[in-house]
Amino acid sequence: MSNNSIDLYIKNGFILTMNPGMEILRPGALAIRGDSIVAVGPEKELQGMEAGAGKILDVQGGIVLPGLINAHTHAAMTLFRGLADDLPLKTWLEEFIFPSEARYVNPDSVYWGTLLACAEMIRSGTTAFADGYFCPDGVVKAVDLSGMRGLLCQGVVDFPAPGVPDPAQNVLEAERFVEKWAGYSSSIHPGIFCHSPYVCSTETIRTVKEICGRRRVSFFMHAAETGEERSLIKYRYGKTPIHYLDNLQVLDAQTVVIHAVHVDSEEIEVLARTGTAVAHCPESNMKLASGIAPVVEMLNKGVLVGLGTDGCASNNDLDLFKEMDTAAKLGKIRYLDPTVMDARTVLRMATLEGARILGLEKEIGSLEVGKKADIIILDLNQPHLVPCYDPYSLLVYSARGADVQSVMIGGRMVMENKKILTFDLDEVMDQVRQISMEIVTKK
Amino acid sequence: MSNNSIDLYIKNGFILTMNPGMEILRPGALAIRGDSIVAVGPEKELQGMEAGAGKILDVQGGIVLPGLINAHTHAAMTLFRGLADDLPLKTWLEEFIFPSEARYVNPDSVYWGTLLACAEMIRSGTTAFADGYFCPDGVVKAVDLSGMRGLLCQGVVDFPAPGVPDPAQNVLEAERFVEKWAGYSSSIHPGIFCHSPYVCSTETIRTVKEICGRRRVSFFMHAAETGEERSLIKYRYGKTPIHYLDNLQVLDAQTVVIHAVHVDSEEIEVLARTGTAVAHCPESNMKLASGIAPVVEMLNKGVLVGLGTDGCASNNDLDLFKEMDTAAKLGKIRYLDPTVMDARTVLRMATLEGARILGLEKEIGSLEVGKKADIIILDLNQPHLVPCYDPYSLLVYSARGADVQSVMIGGRMVMENKKILTFDLDEVMDQVRQISMEIVTKK
Repeated sequence: MSNNSIDLYIKNGFILTMNPGMEILRPGALAIRGDSIVAVGPEKELQGMEAGAGKILDVQGGIVLPGLINAHTHAAMTLFRGLADDLPLKTWLEEFIFPSEARYVNPDSVYWGTLLACAEMIRSGTTAFADGYFCPDGVVKAVDLSGMRGLLCQGVVDFPAPGVPDPAQNVLEAERFVEKWAGYSSSIHPGIFCHSPYVCSTETIRTVKEICGRRRVSFFMHAAETGEERSLIKYRYGKTPIHYLDNLQVLDAQTVVIHAVHVDSEEIEVLARTGTAVAHCPESNMKLASGIAPVVEMLNKGVLVGLGTDGCASNNDLDLFKEMDTAAKLGKIRYLDPTVMDARTVLRMATLEGARILGLEKEIGSLEVGKKADIIILDLNQPHLVPCYDPYSLLVYSARGADVQSVMIGGRMVMENKKILTFDLDEVMDQVRQISMEIVTKK
Repeated sequence: MSNNSIDLYIKNGFILTMNPGMEILRPGALAIRGDSIVAVGPEKELQGMEAGAGKILDVQGGIVLPGLINAHTHAAMTLFRGLADDLPLKTWLEEFIFPSEARYVNPDSVYWGTLLACAEMIRSGTTAFADGYFCPDGVVKAVDLSGMRGLLCQGVVDFPAPGVPDPAQNVLEAERFVEKWAGYSSSIHPGIFCHSPYVCSTETIRTVKEICGRRRVSFFMHAAETGEERSLIKYRYGKTPIHYLDNLQVLDAQTVVIHAVHVDSEEIEVLARTGTAVAHCPESNMKLASGIAPVVEMLNKGVLVGLGTDGCASNNDLDLFKEMDTAAKLGKIRYLDPTVMDARTVLRMATLEGARILGLEKEIGSLEVGKKADIIILDLNQPHLVPCYDPYSLLVYSARGADVQSVMIGGRMVMENKKILTFDLDEVMDQVRQISMEIVTKK
């Protein structure tokens, strides 16, 4: 094999690179060597590479695009999918979610719950995600096995939590987690998820942010999710959540605020000025009746906005295709303007902007030479994907996760013809079913 | 075969009958003779029927439920799926939809577009629907071939329309259509769809309603969809759309108002008092930025509300599973209350209430002895459908159309293991692709 040889040549595809300037290639081709893209362009120009390819993949007119990136989830909460729906927020959280977490979340259940989430994400075309949860060693182990890319954060709360029974140890544990996994692999990146301004003290928030700064890892936090939270923080600290966090000097380009539903224009300007990113979770905000985030104003002011599904207890799935559809439609209804949150903008949020939120914009988020080969392929030969006038519209408004046929992450096939190749899905479903039986019988 | 023999015995299912009082059977069984359900109950009680069954279907723990019912669509508009998105409503309608319809809608294209819609609906678990479009003989032909059940309405507008070049003939044509197809089969029911109070004159509306009353068929009409329409009708007639229609004596139990987004409490009372049904189309209302219908108030006042996808030009799919999810979440966000529009309510809207809207509540909408065997089966053995704490939550918040494995309508299998059995799907997709090429090149 010469130096110029390639491992995989993908051809006969409708390629959406998400690379501004050269977004749509039809027919396009793509060449991969090792874990990276070495060529992408019109098929005519790349044809010469086919002969020397180790393997050739004919996608038969399917759409090839960068893997989607989930900017916020609690993967292991698949364990609680559908356990408690249609309830008041307080009942849901205090009578179901927190008690169930206290009793059933442990390194083992987190491992199985996260693997189930990885299966669901891979099957619906997500190749990378930002996670925040307890017992995150179990998360790392699962994500590593799955082949996915993850920015995996230790959750920090100021009450006894799974894996951290003594809240006085929460910050130390978080730093230990970051130290343990920093540099572990090119796919796993540790970070810290400080739950929210209402369950973390000022001191906790300050110390965690200091650790994140020192260790150069991301800081995630739910903030401005509900009107109640806004009132509570204002009552406690005399400031709205965003101003309060700004005052603590927590807001900067390494911080991701999750939700940001209840923010006014001035607060959006604070987010823009500080370079703080936002993880927008429209389906969760709808299901919990939190409100509608002013995403269009954020985008207009230059705030970086990614798209998250949130956990399965408040969505109740991890399908970013459905989330894109909802994000577009919810934005239109909030502003009563059908032209905002157009399909291309939303697809960028779930790819390029998601990559920036994970701090991986040089590696993923678009199909470009030199970037990692994180690629998904959709089968267009289905009634709901016919006809195809505009690939952006088709992907956002008509496609769904189940249309994803094959998924490659870092040059490695993790799903082929809808079959997950990196782990035994049946075993994972069985394990989670067993855990759910325990939860039902003991609750 | 004795008189007591059955044609099909379905077993090992998680049956959701939607029949109040006996909704969940786990494990349940179901027996079918001819086109009807002859027994449904716990598997233990029905076991004796298995031996005499012509065929046995073991659904291996899958969910068995009544086929979903789409209360409003324009099936043939699959032809325009994704042709013009993210545009102002006026541009979308006047520069894209109306001109495309004028040029490309004919009996042949309507036939192929409708068949594509039937494929998409069957594949996503819809077994019956209410349609309103032009050239409806083509709609009838397609639906008849597909095996679906339809309340198929001739569209009436006061301008030259496909199939009715002279608007002076529009009402006559509609009556001719109803006369032609009344009694044609137990699956096809004709009706009239008077487009809206803004494109139909008072005289047209009155005459069409008179025909519907005389011939005992349903009257469908878009009304109160946008704020602009409300202002326009108020300006033209001195009344809001609902009061205007009430004044014309158009509102009664054989009338279905589509959308009803911009209605106040008094107008909701008018709908309730007159027994007028509403077809709620949340995704279309979001995508066109029309507003959010006050569905909870309608339900509280006793208005019959079904669920519709609207056409593919404004959604852009026909998946009622996605529509249920959106309906639940959109209701919660409108009322800022996570307890409203719970999963069971929404599933009722897409089954039992849909059946009432089609006037077929004695035949379909639930799995009960004596009703038609319109049945869908979902495969639960998938990552996003694990675990299962509550079947309603799972179906509304986690399942999607692609999870439907098999579909039976009137005792006849129309889809088995995701393969459509009643027509050649590849041919249909090819035909629609060809029509779309014409639209693209000539537009």
